[in-house]
Amino acid sequence: MPDAIDFRTDPSRYRHWRIEYAGEIATLFMDVDETGGLFDGYELKLNSYDLGVDIELADIVQRMRFEHPEVKVVVLRSGKDNVFCAGANIRMLAGAAHAHKVNFCKFTNETRNTFEAAGAESGQTYICAIRGACAGGGYELALACDHIILADDASSNVALPEVPLLAVLPGTGGLTRVTDKRKVRRDRADVFCAMEEGVKGKRAAEWRLVDDVVPNKDFEVTVAKRAAEFAARSNRPADATGVELTPLDREIDTDGSIRYSTVEIQLDRAGRRAVVEIKAPAETAPASVEALHAEGAATWMLRAARELDDAILHLRLNELEAGVVVFKTSGDPAAVLAHEAIVLENRNDWFANEIALYWKRVLKRIDLTSRSLAAFAEPGSCFAGTLAEILFAVDRSYMADGAFEGDNRHEATVTLTAANFGPYPMSNGLTRLETRFLGDPAHVERLKDEIGAPLDAAAADDLGLVTFAYDDIDWEDEVRIFLEERASFSPDAMTGLEANLRFAGPETMETRIFGRLTAWQNWIFQRPNAVGEAGALKRYGTGVRPDFDTRRV
Amino acid sequence: MPDAIDFRTDPSRYRHWRIEYAGEIATLFMDVDETGGLFDGYELKLNSYDLGVDIELADIVQRMRFEHPEVKVVVLRSGKDNVFCAGANIRMLAGAAHAHKVNFCKFTNETRNTFEAAGAESGQTYICAIRGACAGGGYELALACDHIILADDASSNVALPEVPLLAVLPGTGGLTRVTDKRKVRRDRADVFCAMEEGVKGKRAAEWRLVDDVVPNKDFEVTVAKRAAEFAARSNRPADATGVELTPLDREIDTDGSIRYSTVEIQLDRAGRRAVVEIKAPAETAPASVEALHAEGAATWMLRAARELDDAILHLRLNELEAGVVVFKTSGDPAAVLAHEAIVLENRNDWFANEIALYWKRVLKRIDLTSRSLAAFAEPGSCFAGTLAEILFAVDRSYMADGAFEGDNRHEATVTLTAANFGPYPMSNGLTRLETRFLGDPAHVERLKDEIGAPLDAAAADDLGLVTFAYDDIDWEDEVRIFLEERASFSPDAMTGLEANLRFAGPETMETRIFGRLTAWQNWIFQRPNAVGEAGALKRYGTGVRPDFDTRRV
Repeated sequence: MPDAIDFRTDPSRYRHWRIEYAGEIATLFMDVDETGGLFDGYELKLNSYDLGVDIELADIVQRMRFEHPEVKVVVLRSGKDNVFCAGANIRMLAGAAHAHKVNFCKFTNETRNTFEAAGAESGQTYICAIRGACAGGGYELALACDHIILADDASSNVALPEVPLLAVLPGTGGLTRVTDKRKVRRDRADVFCAMEEGVKGKRAAEWRLVDDVVPNKDFEVTVAKRAAEFAARSNRPADATGVELTPLDREIDTDGSIRYSTVEIQLDRAGRRAVVEIKAPAETAPASVEALHAEGAATWMLRAARELDDAILHLRLNELEAGVVVFKTSGDPAAVLAHEAIVLENRNDWFANEIALYWKRVLKRIDLTSRSLAAFAEPGSCFAGTLAEILFAVDRSYMADGAFEGDNRHEATVTLTAANFGPYPMSNGLTRLETRFLGDPAHVERLKDEIGAPLDAAAADDLGLVTFAYDDIDWEDEVRIFLEERASFSPDAMTGLEANLRFAGPETMETRIFGRLTAWQNWIFQRPNAVGEAGALKRYGTGVRPDFDTRRV
Repeated sequence: MPDAIDFRTDPSRYRHWRIEYAGEIATLFMDVDETGGLFDGYELKLNSYDLGVDIELADIVQRMRFEHPEVKVVVLRSGKDNVFCAGANIRMLAGAAHAHKVNFCKFTNETRNTFEAAGAESGQTYICAIRGACAGGGYELALACDHIILADDASSNVALPEVPLLAVLPGTGGLTRVTDKRKVRRDRADVFCAMEEGVKGKRAAEWRLVDDVVPNKDFEVTVAKRAAEFAARSNRPADATGVELTPLDREIDTDGSIRYSTVEIQLDRAGRRAVVEIKAPAETAPASVEALHAEGAATWMLRAARELDDAILHLRLNELEAGVVVFKTSGDPAAVLAHEAIVLENRNDWFANEIALYWKRVLKRIDLTSRSLAAFAEPGSCFAGTLAEILFAVDRSYMADGAFEGDNRHEATVTLTAANFGPYPMSNGLTRLETRFLGDPAHVERLKDEIGAPLDAAAADDLGLVTFAYDDIDWEDEVRIFLEERASFSPDAMTGLEANLRFAGPETMETRIFGRLTAWQNWIFQRPNAVGEAGALKRYGTGVRPDFDTRRV
């Protein structure tokens, strides 16, 4: 096992994927290096994957949006003969700790969601072209694409054999997308998910499992035709120049603390917490869209989003004991607003739009982070617009009221902007303010009158924007009590509590995947029938049948 | 532990509740008998409850609807001084097997839902009047009521202290109702759920946790006033005569098989399955609403619903190994239709309406039953209308095509009626046919043309109403293979699979409770932090703090 899992990669380091660019169509080949597993003890046979394979895929999807604005359709296919993808690697799953399995599934789910988002939001559609066996997580990759083409031959099929083979669920969105995206009849879904051998040919289309079933001789023609059709519907700009996502600037100390250019993490391992501080831009905001393009990956809005994203993923996978994550901000709120404005006011520009969409994804990543999340708005802070959104993402927030003795930084304020009223919906489809004020929707409308005004603690508290406001006298005790109390609770109870309280209101396919499907999968991932010494994951491939506790729960 | 948990009870046997009837207002006192626990090893102190207490409550809610049509408002209050209810009994939870905890929570959840349904559907509203501590499952009882009145004094409060005290969730709908019914601001919900001491007085109303906070001197007046207000809104008939729910007629054999008057359960413990057969009425349908009233609890529609309900609960709690439940029917479809018609065509009559609503609840109880559910429509069967709905509730269905050699019963048919298009919505708010054909809503409309026609297997298959149709030659092998295969799968994987596939489409508060909240609670109910020897449930009350694995998952 590596010391720490690194989510940073780039095309020069890919081991598992190849991309061929041809104008508006890109073809993405999954071609997993058997010997390239992230951990020892398993080989990535048959295009099976582990977290390392998925980290590359996430990087590809991200770079496709920024570095290849000319791409309108991505065709996902296999680089191997006779197999599309066998899904998540079983030996990896059998050997992995519970927390790793859970985090692995969450990350792969988030990456699948980015395919769907790229098509829906950016006119960059994913098509899946399947030849050979496409099973389990392989078919879940396909399900996340907008269109699935299956070769009509003896060896090509789609399958979700997790239940009969492994006694676990297709947990990367498979069950949810079968019922709610592809709307497969529920009894057929039941039959399909109980079949090791999967479904092929005409029946796969009849059951809505795939969109096209085509003879091998027509396969390439159909793929090209569908790609052209989806490309024709895209609103991607014709002649845009991509923006390279340059390497992140990151330093890790021995105590686990991290410094990026705009984000710092202070780790208190004994106290079981991490403080993530986001720093306002020191530099002037780009004066025009052209200037924004010229700054490229260096522009504060994009740099901060990328660094924050990496910071969250790092904490999730590498700092399991940091049960509480506290967000702080520092710097001039006006600088944040100036940088945000050039992005949000120019969403007709593809690059500005992609930056906004990236923030949407990062904020969702925060929502879904299984740690107790808090925000401390202290003197010197800049919870404005996009950064104020973090106040509404966390479980609770503390705001410093007035000047603090011996602290000559500016008093804390909160500033609402258009960022808080639309561009960053949660996975439940509502804005964070709409979710927060579900009981009083009119209040969200009233809050629009406050746009642009720096609200002090009394005003922010009065408007319901923060949980608590404390002055100099009480602040230190109150936040200390909170941090100590939270660290004393059962981490598991926190996980369950937060997963329930954060997503009030409507449910969507996304919330169902992370709420219902994931919760049941995690339950199964604890059960001896799946993970015990005589369980199905451990016994897979041994020729010995698993022993099951036959009582239903 | 008793040999089998019996869900049948009646007012003469209640140990934990008292009811005072006063015209349109009934007052229900929770007054738990400490020594009346269902199992040994714990005392039901402080109005804490176990499944036995809840079985009585479920019976009360049911009888209130049928036996007391004059009641428009039920005021729920405590029969003890100084405590309203301390919630589920902790020692019971600490000692109970995982499957019992899960089934206990499911049943209590179903019972809470019936309060809400009684107010919404039957004009019989529950009001909760709280004096004293109202904690955990106690507050969840209150949350399921339509209105909560809290005394404003030093000892009256509401609390969900499960997380800090016990490292489990408020799993009987508490978290979902706080965010989605009462629409408490999510950061306040976070604070509330982390507080052992709960919230009292004005703040409880300010945070939307209760509706009225009233000084002790005004308490009785306010309770009476609110009861009168809700009663005034009710559409319950003024001078109806109740229908007594007479004792169920039930015989259990030593092999576990059961005979009711309209329902039989054949148990195959070695094969890990149960066959539930529902028999069509032999008697003529009541010719009028008056005749329906005269038949009372003996009328087939009500009798079959009650017997089926009891059968399902019995299997859930007492036959954990019966992993597959197969529904069969037998008798004359026309008789089913005649009995159904007098009920569904007279829903303006309170009693007919209550029978239809009971079927709605029983069918939901089937949806939520954590067993692989199948239906076999064999020669001689009567899957018509209300009974056809079972075909759409199960995970998959098999229909016999044509005559079977040596079997002189009538060929199997399926008959749709109005029952399949509205009166029995699932907990997702859709009918079972709407859920089934989520991908083709127009098909549901087309199916209305088939109402009343006995559809043979070819037609039913063609219309997508059954999963498989097999003739005499294939039938036996196919159903045998299914039964054997299903029994060979991991029961846990089945639980997770079915919980995901059954509820496509919209989510509601109900589906969130059984999907998201329950799944996370079940996960926590497996984790050592809660249930281990050094976990919070085991160490509660010992003075020794629990040991937690501090890694977040």
